[in-house]
Amino acid sequence: MEKELHFERSEFATRVTSVKKEMEKRDIDTLLLSEPANANYLTGYDAYSFYVPQMVVVALDREEPIWVGRGMDGISAFMTTYLSDDSIRTYADAYVQSALSPYDFVAEIVKEIAGRKTRVGVEMGGYYYSARAHSDLMKALPEATFIDADLLVNWIRLVKSPAEVALMRQAGRIAEAMMYRAVDTIEPGARECDIAAVIYHQMMAGTPEFGGTYTCSPPYLCVGEKALAPHAAWTDKPLLPSTIVNLELFGNRHRYQVNLARTICVGKPSPNYQKLADVVVESLNAGLDAVAPGKSAEEVHAAFAKTLAKHGHEKDSRLGYSLGLGYPPAVGEKTVSLRKGDKTVLRPGMCFHMMSGLWLENDGITITQPFVVTETGHEPLTKIPRQLFVK
Amino acid sequence: MEKELHFERSEFATRVTSVKKEMEKRDIDTLLLSEPANANYLTGYDAYSFYVPQMVVVALDREEPIWVGRGMDGISAFMTTYLSDDSIRTYADAYVQSALSPYDFVAEIVKEIAGRKTRVGVEMGGYYYSARAHSDLMKALPEATFIDADLLVNWIRLVKSPAEVALMRQAGRIAEAMMYRAVDTIEPGARECDIAAVIYHQMMAGTPEFGGTYTCSPPYLCVGEKALAPHAAWTDKPLLPSTIVNLELFGNRHRYQVNLARTICVGKPSPNYQKLADVVVESLNAGLDAVAPGKSAEEVHAAFAKTLAKHGHEKDSRLGYSLGLGYPPAVGEKTVSLRKGDKTVLRPGMCFHMMSGLWLENDGITITQPFVVTETGHEPLTKIPRQLFVK
Repeated sequence: MEKELHFERSEFATRVTSVKKEMEKRDIDTLLLSEPANANYLTGYDAYSFYVPQMVVVALDREEPIWVGRGMDGISAFMTTYLSDDSIRTYADAYVQSALSPYDFVAEIVKEIAGRKTRVGVEMGGYYYSARAHSDLMKALPEATFIDADLLVNWIRLVKSPAEVALMRQAGRIAEAMMYRAVDTIEPGARECDIAAVIYHQMMAGTPEFGGTYTCSPPYLCVGEKALAPHAAWTDKPLLPSTIVNLELFGNRHRYQVNLARTICVGKPSPNYQKLADVVVESLNAGLDAVAPGKSAEEVHAAFAKTLAKHGHEKDSRLGYSLGLGYPPAVGEKTVSLRKGDKTVLRPGMCFHMMSGLWLENDGITITQPFVVTETGHEPLTKIPRQLFVK
Repeated sequence: MEKELHFERSEFATRVTSVKKEMEKRDIDTLLLSEPANANYLTGYDAYSFYVPQMVVVALDREEPIWVGRGMDGISAFMTTYLSDDSIRTYADAYVQSALSPYDFVAEIVKEIAGRKTRVGVEMGGYYYSARAHSDLMKALPEATFIDADLLVNWIRLVKSPAEVALMRQAGRIAEAMMYRAVDTIEPGARECDIAAVIYHQMMAGTPEFGGTYTCSPPYLCVGEKALAPHAAWTDKPLLPSTIVNLELFGNRHRYQVNLARTICVGKPSPNYQKLADVVVESLNAGLDAVAPGKSAEEVHAAFAKTLAKHGHEKDSRLGYSLGLGYPPAVGEKTVSLRKGDKTVLRPGMCFHMMSGLWLENDGITITQPFVVTETGHEPLTKIPRQLFVK
């Protein structure tokens, strides 16, 4: 059976070593990862199976991580990871959504490899580490010490390797193709759901050279009044002859995701709205110009905010967030935000979405830019013009 | 600003009343719902915003539930719920992925409406109720008593109203359209990702009468060797002249989802494989024939299993699960499973996916049927022939 690995074995080894080093620093013997992106990062595991309990166990004393999941998904572990058979452990289907707890099964593995008194790191804030998971594990490992290791691996993921940046560039190509098709399709009378349809079609079709895959969230296609609501669902209503479409979409290649947003104006924009677009683009460019290794996240934010303030506007929400490997429900690595107070120093290989969307009292507008930090500044991950599109 | 509600106000009122009755029975004063489907069920709220902390608070002493979420999503709460302004409470963006906890904000609301010593129900096993959420809430409400109310609302959702069944039927129409387009597109040389593309296109385009929306998980398009792996990701490789495609897909209308799977054989199937298909269909039909109000979930399973056993096969995993309203990462209501030991009695309005997929040592096959329990038996939610498709 063929293995599908998107990185060299040595790259996985480097990642595991970095994680173990951080575990040592924090005095953690055994790390239980519930976050699917972290599991993928360390083992390669890729399947949409994390809606049932699934973990990757990293132990200081054991070379390979262990993947633990549902019986029927063991075959995906075999196909998509480099792990040896003994590092793939599956539980029976009787554990699925029943009175049995798969975390008892996980606890047995922890005892086997690290003993009863191990110091266990868990991802307290993870989407897939529920209050129940934590309670069950604590009950099953009464002598262990639990340590919050949330985002431990996320912070290591922050700086992307050249092989990862290559995938981010491919995801950028897909995001571009999606945006161009959306702009083509948007016109008066088109149903919102039919615009969503072509966006999704391109998301998967990707480019002739490489295909795409499902993203960490649906695109946000916010029309008319809903242009004020950043995360609204689309409807099946036809577009009016004059309306605003705020579109945030995502391209994904082997789980690496690039986010991109544009506003498309159906009909001629009002002079005020065009002016707002110009202000957003000017501020966005000022933010991008401030990106360089050694600069801090808040310095980038300040450059954007200063330009925006010059025109009498303010953005309440953060200016951006780091991008990379992700699974539903969200791509956000939950590490660096481009906002006041975030003093993280930028380094080459970090990727961000400069989410320069503004939601004012009566107007919403989204013209944004994903980028990777380079040795000298930044490289845009998409090449769509930074402008208001008018149809 | 226009409100978008998919049910009558009286239907929401009935739902809230049912939940409060169950709260009283369990001696819960205040129920904190983290599960987006439960929030939607009681308030109508619909936006893809649950990846940040978001809750619906139901208090015995208060007529309306309260929606709590991020500032920028308050407008979606206004647009998609019937709630009055005082029942929509939003926290500032400074709480998002920072050192501040939005659960402190939630705790203040709980104290305001129910006092410090309230008995609080929480969804311990919810995807969006992390170990951190629970820990923060317990810290912020030290005098409250916490009670596990996981699935409390899910069980009330189990029996669908006529208005809900109507949406399930529409979701079924979308699932059918998706399956027909997939079968049309599957042929030697087609890239897997291009097949995914047309499936997704139809998922959103829906029918000429009504549009579709994103589903709770991506379709499962498992080709060749991966037909053994139920939740594998697709690739961008072209289909071989002779291969198996196991396709599970989902139609979704206003968040109501219908699941459906078929196997499509590219090239002529081996006689053994065709025989396996016939056995699955015979067993599936036997299971469906056993569906009627008053029968138990395990009786339905037994009818399927008996027929399958007659042909020397066994299915390890459960035969099915209840379907309905859902959000990513999974549609499963986590209530009834069609399997041995589940004694839930079927009632009209319950919806299921009879997931009669088999994953044997060398073969995987998926021919399934979603249905609603009626007064006399069942109504299939899709009308695609129950057969192996050959291309």
